[in-house]
Amino acid sequence: MNRRRSGCPINLTLETFGDRWSLIVLRDMMFGPSRTFRALLGQSIEGIASNILADRLKRLTEHGLLSRCGDPGHQQRVIYSLTEKAIELVPMMVAMGSWGIRHKQASTELSIRARILEEGGPALWADFMDELRHLHLGAAPPERSTMARMQAAYEAARAA
Amino acid sequence: MNRRRSGCPINLTLETFGDRWSLIVLRDMMFGPSRTFRALLGQSIEGIASNILADRLKRLTEHGLLSRCGDPGHQQRVIYSLTEKAIELVPMMVAMGSWGIRHKQASTELSIRARILEEGGPALWADFMDELRHLHLGAAPPERSTMARMQAAYEAARAA
Repeated sequence: MNRRRSGCPINLTLETFGDRWSLIVLRDMMFGPSRTFRALLGQSIEGIASNILADRLKRLTEHGLLSRCGDPGHQQRVIYSLTEKAIELVPMMVAMGSWGIRHKQASTELSIRARILEEGGPALWADFMDELRHLHLGAAPPERSTMARMQAAYEAARAA
Repeated sequence: MNRRRSGCPINLTLETFGDRWSLIVLRDMMFGPSRTFRALLGQSIEGIASNILADRLKRLTEHGLLSRCGDPGHQQRVIYSLTEKAIELVPMMVAMGSWGIRHKQASTELSIRARILEEGGPALWADFMDELRHLHLGAAPPERSTMARMQAAYEAARAA
């Protein structure tokens, strides 16, 4: 993990994730309420395997993209939080979503969030990042909830 | 390859690449002059292995991100070109570069291009994409060369 093949920032970013499952786990924590192993496993729309999930949570924690703390209510339950470093991946996630909408046959309801973020541009991404800082880092809540807006649009698309 | 785990656009984008080497190959073709197997292998700053390069070129071609044609001057040489689909990955590459500069210890000279693109914003990315369309798809050349500007800055940083 400490062996870097070059100092190119794109390479270093890719080396940090290693593979797509790491980014899928981060996506699930950014766009949904899952914060525990059990919730991430149970709500995975891609059906992540439990050993892969365990490995990626460990890896992401080692890389400083997730932090972990115990849940005072459940002795053996660990709650994961996104770190600032992970929250700053939002623009990259948005770019991935935009490309996927344009070039792959993405499903309508699962594309709603990506569309809203694309249309909202950097100002909306900043709001969304502030909301993640509120939920994961204890910062003050933003004026408007981007997550609530995305969730409502997703539910409307599903109902339609 | 046709087995999709979900219709989420971020997942579909990640499934298209599979792993970091595919994106490293696309990066090399976007930011440098390499268009053949031999050039991509010889100029790889990450030291890509020849079997991995061969596999990823095949995979990227199958996914419609690269096209290949023979070189009239050399019977056995194949020249690869970026497709429109691949050129539209520029914003995602920029986002990866920006994150890498901010959160990893990227080398100064290898970060120059990422910095220029970050500072230039979407207008400069559009110029750069037009230049790639010129070089890879035969479109008209853009007014200014973003690649020449990035190359000059890179060489100045290396000399310093």
